[in-house]
Amino acid sequence: MLVVMKALATEEQVRAVCQKIEKLGYRAHPMPGATRTAIGITGNKGEVEQGTLEEMPGVQEVIAVSKPYKLVSRDVKEENTVITFSGTAATIGGPGLAIVAGPCAIESREQAFTVAERVHRAGAQFFRGGAYKPRTSPYSFQGLGEEGLRIMAEIRQQFGMKIITEAIDHESLDLVEEYADVIQIGARKPVLLKRGMSATLEEFLMAAEYILSEGNYNVALCERGVRTFADHTRNTLDLSLVPAVQRLSHLPILVDPSHGTGKRNKVTPLSRAAVAVGADGLMVEVHHQPDQALSDGPQSLFPDQFDELMTQVRQIAAVVGRTVPAIGVREPAAVSK
Amino acid sequence: MLVVMKALATEEQVRAVCQKIEKLGYRAHPMPGATRTAIGITGNKGEVEQGTLEEMPGVQEVIAVSKPYKLVSRDVKEENTVITFSGTAATIGGPGLAIVAGPCAIESREQAFTVAERVHRAGAQFFRGGAYKPRTSPYSFQGLGEEGLRIMAEIRQQFGMKIITEAIDHESLDLVEEYADVIQIGARKPVLLKRGMSATLEEFLMAAEYILSEGNYNVALCERGVRTFADHTRNTLDLSLVPAVQRLSHLPILVDPSHGTGKRNKVTPLSRAAVAVGADGLMVEVHHQPDQALSDGPQSLFPDQFDELMTQVRQIAAVVGRTVPAIGVREPAAVSK
Amino acid sequence: MLVVMKALATEEQVRAVCQKIEKLGYRAHPMPGATRTAIGITGNKGEVEQGTLEEMPGVQEVIAVSKPYKLVSRDVKEENTVITFSGTAATIGGPGLAIVAGPCAIESREQAFTVAERVHRAGAQFFRGGAYKPRTSPYSFQGLGEEGLRIMAEIRQQFGMKIITEAIDHESLDLVEEYADVIQIGARKPVLLKRGMSATLEEFLMAAEYILSEGNYNVALCERGVRTFADHTRNTLDLSLVPAVQRLSHLPILVDPSHGTGKRNKVTPLSRAAVAVGADGLMVEVHHQPDQALSDGPQSLFPDQFDELMTQVRQIAAVVGRTVPAIGVREPAAVSK
Amino acid sequence: MLVVMKALATEEQVRAVCQKIEKLGYRAHPMPGATRTAIGITGNKGEVEQGTLEEMPGVQEVIAVSKPYKLVSRDVKEENTVITFSGTAATIGGPGLAIVAGPCAIESREQAFTVAERVHRAGAQFFRGGAYKPRTSPYSFQGLGEEGLRIMAEIRQQFGMKIITEAIDHESLDLVEEYADVIQIGARKPVLLKRGMSATLEEFLMAAEYILSEGNYNVALCERGVRTFADHTRNTLDLSLVPAVQRLSHLPILVDPSHGTGKRNKVTPLSRAAVAVGADGLMVEVHHQPDQALSDGPQSLFPDQFDELMTQVRQIAAVVGRTVPAIGVREPAAVSK
Repeated sequence: MLVVMKALATEEQVRAVCQKIEKLGYRAHPMPGATRTAIGITGNKGEVEQGTLEEMPGVQEVIAVSKPYKLVSRDVKEENTVITFSGTAATIGGPGLAIVAGPCAIESREQAFTVAERVHRAGAQFFRGGAYKPRTSPYSFQGLGEEGLRIMAEIRQQFGMKIITEAIDHESLDLVEEYADVIQIGARKPVLLKRGMSATLEEFLMAAEYILSEGNYNVALCERGVRTFADHTRNTLDLSLVPAVQRLSHLPILVDPSHGTGKRNKVTPLSRAAVAVGADGLMVEVHHQPDQALSDGPQSLFPDQFDELMTQVRQIAAVVGRTVPAIGVREPAAVSK
Repeated sequence: MLVVMKALATEEQVRAVCQKIEKLGYRAHPMPGATRTAIGITGNKGEVEQGTLEEMPGVQEVIAVSKPYKLVSRDVKEENTVITFSGTAATIGGPGLAIVAGPCAIESREQAFTVAERVHRAGAQFFRGGAYKPRTSPYSFQGLGEEGLRIMAEIRQQFGMKIITEAIDHESLDLVEEYADVIQIGARKPVLLKRGMSATLEEFLMAAEYILSEGNYNVALCERGVRTFADHTRNTLDLSLVPAVQRLSHLPILVDPSHGTGKRNKVTPLSRAAVAVGADGLMVEVHHQPDQALSDGPQSLFPDQFDELMTQVRQIAAVVGRTVPAIGVREPAAVSK
Repeated sequence: MLVVMKALATEEQVRAVCQKIEKLGYRAHPMPGATRTAIGITGNKGEVEQGTLEEMPGVQEVIAVSKPYKLVSRDVKEENTVITFSGTAATIGGPGLAIVAGPCAIESREQAFTVAERVHRAGAQFFRGGAYKPRTSPYSFQGLGEEGLRIMAEIRQQFGMKIITEAIDHESLDLVEEYADVIQIGARKPVLLKRGMSATLEEFLMAAEYILSEGNYNVALCERGVRTFADHTRNTLDLSLVPAVQRLSHLPILVDPSHGTGKRNKVTPLSRAAVAVGADGLMVEVHHQPDQALSDGPQSLFPDQFDELMTQVRQIAAVVGRTVPAIGVREPAAVSK
Repeated sequence: MLVVMKALATEEQVRAVCQKIEKLGYRAHPMPGATRTAIGITGNKGEVEQGTLEEMPGVQEVIAVSKPYKLVSRDVKEENTVITFSGTAATIGGPGLAIVAGPCAIESREQAFTVAERVHRAGAQFFRGGAYKPRTSPYSFQGLGEEGLRIMAEIRQQFGMKIITEAIDHESLDLVEEYADVIQIGARKPVLLKRGMSATLEEFLMAAEYILSEGNYNVALCERGVRTFADHTRNTLDLSLVPAVQRLSHLPILVDPSHGTGKRNKVTPLSRAAVAVGADGLMVEVHHQPDQALSDGPQSLFPDQFDELMTQVRQIAAVVGRTVPAIGVREPAAVSK
């Protein structure tokens, strides 16, 4: 259910409607737009009685939302969500593409800094690296844990890149929240939500809806391949998801061609394709010695390949009306978190 | 890596080998078999040097295990794993089929007891019911939580059925461990591990390997459908997984045709097929008023349909050399946990 | 569109309605049922005006069929289709299961007769063998062509089994029609239609609808696996299709676990499961020297394994109210076609 | 098996090797390259004995080809295949992208000419249109047949565009060969081979191998989506196939985002992505009145949308070093077939 306020409704009127909703036992999600505010209603109790709210001052109409998700929908918020960060001009969802790069896992201070220096110089504004790795085999490298998080915090300090890393349970989440700028599942901070390998578009949007319904609206989505019979890549990267998400939702969507294909030689062509299809950013694995990587080496680019990828992506971004930071330009305000 | 002890090796020799393994920084998993003991070696450090162990008294040979999983493999343990429970003759993995039945979610004391009475009378030895429901939509019924667990504990007390329920995070896991007999993800108690909707056979076995490598060998697997293009059922039940698992692993495998198809009219034929293909048990949703169920109503059987299913399944079990408890027979020792 | 005649409608009235339909530029498909006749209307011109036919003598009602297929639907014909053959009591779709067995490809007279003798003795009423093999690689054995057809005609003569073989283009179809009893794609003779590896249920029924709409109602369907990400079998056998087809259509449906799994050790358990799920028959590959087979050796059963399969299948058939011919019993009328 | 000739081998030496191969009962496929000639050997008889050929004059080495396909492989021919046409500068596989556009089906002379005029003006060098339509339902429009072919021949005459159309059986193939420039399955003329909805990369290359092994080397491939669980598009367009094919094979590969997604609003973004990923061309459905189209209306672009698509594609082509004919430029030699 969605309450659309009049264009001239006062803040007080919006607040009154929200209080009424909460008093009825539901949760109110005011979402200010360019011309008017909409208030999403969520709750575990079925539909609220429409008449109750329709008569309140400042309310234009109360509409039922037919889709199973609400807060992620363009019906509720027409403008694109743009996630901003303190201390940097970089955004996720703005006109500039969000370029996320780094190794699959943080393996050592030296490895992390070597890669960070290179991807930063090539224009990446976000540094990715795993500290807790959910591996298929219990006998594989599981990540450095808190030490990995500490290394990434130093990288943020030195290069001004924002940090994206993955939490896998409650313990790791607490630590990750302490150190990272964007987390890949979660709570109050910006969240990068990865599509499950067998999630439909609707299920993916519903997973995001869970996070928004808890009051965290800073969610970016990430396509990273689905499971199919095709065996020439690890998963099948589903680029058609990008325009499909953008039609239905205001949330930004990135593409991860590294996990999506599992093969180094496919990463650059599919990064070009992802930008061409209209993605809001890329998430790419880079490693200076992929043959010695403790995880995902075969899909990690060499730093020189990442340079080349950025050059190509920059040109294609221009064609679709997006920008990418120039090579080696340190963003001015990129000092602290 | 696997240390195969001689048939006549003493317990002391086995213990000495285990201590040596631990001293080398690995973990030892002694697995007594019918004629000899094998000791699995796991650890995050790469391969142990073979010679070190081969020379120890009582060791017959040290063999490298080529598959990415070890402890779940028939190479390590040839005999079928049979999970037993105190206070009941029912097993998972033994000659008798494990019949698990109950509603998707515990909705009320009355609903749970009504269904429990019926499935118990029809021969089910295990009662399933969700207290914490991971739903696609945040606006759907999420389960009764601890109250649901308490209701199931009463059902165990009254009917002697063992309880199987699902934990979704650490908080719920603690509570679930307190109340349930089998949990669907986890720790020391028997674990029923559901196949992910896009998990390959190898990934499924690796997930089980995680649990065994933590020292919990009481794991049963459950096939419940995979994601495919086919749209006449919710997922596509992959019965070929049953003989495939049984060839590679000693762990028991159940089939859940309720989640696997999502349609009531497919549950009985596919339950018959699951027993015919050789599954070690069934997991079936039953509800006395499916039209009013708070979740998964359309795939829940009516109690009368479950009676009919049990009759058919009992006959097919006989053909494949398995048994199913007779209708209405309360197992003698089934008093308390 | 479907014209349902009154129970007491005369043959003349049925004929008059059919003539009217044809005169309107459509095609009429009279389908006599147990109590009344229904007449399906097909044609490339959109809907026929309802009133025109509703007023004719003997017509009870004219109903629109909402599904995209008509003639294959149970709405049009409630009774199961039973395909009969001259000179044998064996049927496809009757109470007795249709057991189709034989090698993937006819390789020589000796090979074919050796296998035929064994599967006939074990109870198979239909002999399968490929004369024209559509192989993935142009460098693989492509079949013996007409010579293979001639060998199968001799087998029919000697053992009284009916012959099922595959046509791949118009030239081969003409020859196949001359020699075979059932063809796997086609024209006037009974047709066994295999599900495409990526066909949905609706598409599969529509493919059958093509054949019925040409006036050939003797169509049996065959499930043989779909393409999924799962890699432990060649394709994923979708047994849930059997009850799904039986709900929507009157056509019989067989299961082919040989092609459906591609692995010998899966054929017997999945044959049991196919009968348990309610299939109308099995199609199984058998070869006396599978290691030397020119195609599909790894999925062919040894004759002894087929004997064992038949024993198990016979017991399960009894549970689901079906029969299978006893071992070694030559059916009385099985002399010639 | 592959015979690599020396760089200075004479034509006579090449001919002698081919004769020897044929004499041994195999088929020889000489493939001249930039610096040397390779001769592929195919045949139904197993491996040729290596020594026989290795000693012949002009032979540098004889190598076994480990992949199941040979003639389509880059091992046999390193240079890209470029398909040329008389009377036009347009190619498939050359530096210029091949732009194929037109309606799904030819419905009338007026419809075909209206669309042809628009796509020609926007820069398409190839006109697509179906005369024989393999439809899912027997009750759907099946195409105009020979009349459709005749209309397309007129379009070639008037606009100088080359004609691509589909043959579905032998009868239609004969007629199609008479009228079309490229056929979508087949014989001596250039062939556009569409990927089956569930074909793996290897199977797709093997299907092409069939055509090359018959002596027709003018084959272009076309990715058009695979069957997956994802339901936001009709099929899932698998753009990762493009770099995968280009790595293994010398054949050009086009992308068809119209069939690949089934939705008009996805065609333009995925056309951009297809060019960005490196495809050799596009195949796009255009219709001036899609709402009245007899087939595939919902996925057909309006001519104005095709103009816009071409503008975007032209810019992206430049980034990846490819060209697209300028708008409205009639290619000089485009007079007759």
